[in-house]
Amino acid sequence: METKDMIKIEKYFSTHDIDSVADWVEEAITIKKNPLGYKEYGQNKTIAMLFFNPSLRTRLSTQKAAVHLGMNVIVMNFNGEGWSLEYNDGTIMDQGTSEHVKEAAQVVSQYCDVLAIRAFASLESKEDDYSEKVIKSFVKYASVPIINMESATAHPLQALTDAMTITEHMTKKRPKVVFSWAPHPKPLPQAVANSFVEMIKRMDVDFVCTYPEGYELARHITEGVTTTHDQEAALKDADFVYVKNWSSYADYGKVLSTDTSWKMTAKKMELTNNAKFMHCLPVRRNVVVDDEVLDGANSLVIEQANNRTYAAQLVLKKMLE
Amino acid sequence: METKDMIKIEKYFSTHDIDSVADWVEEAITIKKNPLGYKEYGQNKTIAMLFFNPSLRTRLSTQKAAVHLGMNVIVMNFNGEGWSLEYNDGTIMDQGTSEHVKEAAQVVSQYCDVLAIRAFASLESKEDDYSEKVIKSFVKYASVPIINMESATAHPLQALTDAMTITEHMTKKRPKVVFSWAPHPKPLPQAVANSFVEMIKRMDVDFVCTYPEGYELARHITEGVTTTHDQEAALKDADFVYVKNWSSYADYGKVLSTDTSWKMTAKKMELTNNAKFMHCLPVRRNVVVDDEVLDGANSLVIEQANNRTYAAQLVLKKMLE
Amino acid sequence: METKDMIKIEKYFSTHDIDSVADWVEEAITIKKNPLGYKEYGQNKTIAMLFFNPSLRTRLSTQKAAVHLGMNVIVMNFNGEGWSLEYNDGTIMDQGTSEHVKEAAQVVSQYCDVLAIRAFASLESKEDDYSEKVIKSFVKYASVPIINMESATAHPLQALTDAMTITEHMTKKRPKVVFSWAPHPKPLPQAVANSFVEMIKRMDVDFVCTYPEGYELARHITEGVTTTHDQEAALKDADFVYVKNWSSYADYGKVLSTDTSWKMTAKKMELTNNAKFMHCLPVRRNVVVDDEVLDGANSLVIEQANNRTYAAQLVLKKMLE
Repeated sequence: METKDMIKIEKYFSTHDIDSVADWVEEAITIKKNPLGYKEYGQNKTIAMLFFNPSLRTRLSTQKAAVHLGMNVIVMNFNGEGWSLEYNDGTIMDQGTSEHVKEAAQVVSQYCDVLAIRAFASLESKEDDYSEKVIKSFVKYASVPIINMESATAHPLQALTDAMTITEHMTKKRPKVVFSWAPHPKPLPQAVANSFVEMIKRMDVDFVCTYPEGYELARHITEGVTTTHDQEAALKDADFVYVKNWSSYADYGKVLSTDTSWKMTAKKMELTNNAKFMHCLPVRRNVVVDDEVLDGANSLVIEQANNRTYAAQLVLKKMLE
Repeated sequence: METKDMIKIEKYFSTHDIDSVADWVEEAITIKKNPLGYKEYGQNKTIAMLFFNPSLRTRLSTQKAAVHLGMNVIVMNFNGEGWSLEYNDGTIMDQGTSEHVKEAAQVVSQYCDVLAIRAFASLESKEDDYSEKVIKSFVKYASVPIINMESATAHPLQALTDAMTITEHMTKKRPKVVFSWAPHPKPLPQAVANSFVEMIKRMDVDFVCTYPEGYELARHITEGVTTTHDQEAALKDADFVYVKNWSSYADYGKVLSTDTSWKMTAKKMELTNNAKFMHCLPVRRNVVVDDEVLDGANSLVIEQANNRTYAAQLVLKKMLE
Repeated sequence: METKDMIKIEKYFSTHDIDSVADWVEEAITIKKNPLGYKEYGQNKTIAMLFFNPSLRTRLSTQKAAVHLGMNVIVMNFNGEGWSLEYNDGTIMDQGTSEHVKEAAQVVSQYCDVLAIRAFASLESKEDDYSEKVIKSFVKYASVPIINMESATAHPLQALTDAMTITEHMTKKRPKVVFSWAPHPKPLPQAVANSFVEMIKRMDVDFVCTYPEGYELARHITEGVTTTHDQEAALKDADFVYVKNWSSYADYGKVLSTDTSWKMTAKKMELTNNAKFMHCLPVRRNVVVDDEVLDGANSLVIEQANNRTYAAQLVLKKMLE
């Protein structure tokens, strides 16, 4: 065990909780080679996973990661199985909420060693979502490390996975990575986009972000990033093309365009340097991306999903050191 | 370990995946005698159980079986907890479905060693149901063994349980087994009936299937089977009476009759050779069968349910060899 | 291991299943000091936890307790995941219920070593609720020990926790314990109140129960207990103040009053002997109790919730001896 492995983390709320992207990616890739080699870390330790929203990859890969580490797993769908939570201080709770997060977070902390939470953006209020009241309340009141399994504005487990996948597949020193908006019939959160951009900014790549007018991400996210509304220009010579929809930040939570011309096609991929195709999944076929791209030899989406396990395992391991 | 134990199976989709009914039944009965004797099979292995429909026996007995084998268990209710899946190829997914089964099955396979799925018949389209699009899609795209925990047209874990229960309780060489339709207020799938008939055809028993007009099962199921609309004639000298409702196959998914005269009663059981009574459960009392039959000394229904654990354990063991 | 530890219990349905409150509390406190010291009790044992209602503390603490004992845990939300149950005998089940508890309880018993059940009061019929038909049906038909995780009229895991918490925090021989009703916008069951009063009657404390007119608990519960409608008089010199809402027993299941003057306040707490504040949670802030009391140095609510784990662990251990 090297010294750098021994830095214990107290939360994994955003990519800012990563001290060194390169070191984390390297260690995640090491774990992938021998995932069962760390069973002693989780002995007699319990993770509680609280879901306020649907989940497939995150739910299963995080459980698998915990199991690799020998942990006990408690899964709870908070809506339906639990009580509806109050997040505001000083409220007279005579309306719909039954329990304050202050109690819930303190109490749940006593039953586990790590607490993982999924709580999507409401997309109704930019202020509420970008204040991250749900997960920040848990971080504030919990007495155990918290893992963000996708919050209103961030999905750092996905971003770590993405950094790992790019690192595994890059064949030159400073690859060109293009992050492109794509159409979608429903308004989606900016969480994946935010975390991906924040992560990629810390990697040694040539990065371009492309989206239609009105789809600018928050300024603090894209600060220092090359952005363009010209998708085809962006794609030129790309080594990696990551496609993802998000709803408008400016006109918050709105679908401004379902312009199908932004869909990723095989023809557009020809503009690239035989680029690898990435998406976090779930993906709407032939809306976000054409079948032939998703099913093509250069698609990394299934391997990306597989890497979720090792990203989660790394984060858990760092909390258990 | 005998050689026959060592045949690893890649899927348990229907009773056709059983190479030898007699051998499987024998081995399931052996497991029942010492269920904890196989803990090494599941070490560091994980089963993911995906439910698209309610389940009591299947949910609990399959988990118990996995635990007996030392496996880790991940349970997921796909509806509500996950994304709604698309099953058709080439669809422009701009409507209700969020993820294609092609991704879902490939991705989930990466998080487990065995994948078990429950996906009932819709009873809306015979073509859709009998094409088994849900479970066959998973079988097609998954990279790990798949267990059918009741699909649109088959419930092979139940059928294996039933074969095991009959074998344990038969007191003569070639017992008479009667499978009788019974009334039910709601339309039920043909899955249990199909798998039971397919299984029993491969056993050395005198088999009769009885149901009212209009309730014929699919021709490929009852091919070679003695059938009759005369329930009382069928029951004569029976050693086992298995009762089950199903909806019409011809007039697909319809309840054609709730004729209470088809209910199993103590009086009808008197026509038999002191027959054992069987049902897969859940059962509607005094609609499908009278209390006194279900509660009588000859009722095997609770033991049948118990055998679900060992049937599931055998199938899992064969996948883990 | 002392002899008194070795008394195996067959059910934990109410506080009456406790032979000696003092001994149980002492042993729970012993377990708390070394919760991982009993791993051999649960080897190859499985608990099935069936929920008919929401749960946070009970769900997580009971799982944690089982994990401490080395048990396997199967959790099931009966509504939604299972079949709707029939509880009456002799019914012709041609309506909404799909399975009789007689089968369900017998069957589930075969898949586990301990069965834990949560089934709240309906608050529609006093007769139905106080006959405890759900949990008593399971007790009647199950073949394994049953734990009450809050039934219509009792919450004995909470009461054991409360006795433990009071014992840990009492600083004199015979402390004064006040149990006070508090307002709540919705009708709540009497389960927590009933079990707390039944438990406290068996402890060597000076006990007073206070509530507005119309909120008398069932006579057999408060028999022998000092009760008063004068909250402030009750609070005088109290060492412990336990606050809890319940709906009317006389005018069954009704909210007769939301009189905010019954809310617990810092000013009222000044009437006490620097009393510790208790509540079972979830609690509606500033309706049941003011923030400053709940957040004050004398509040035991978080520690109370923590003790749930050890109360559950003791009950499980007694079933596994």
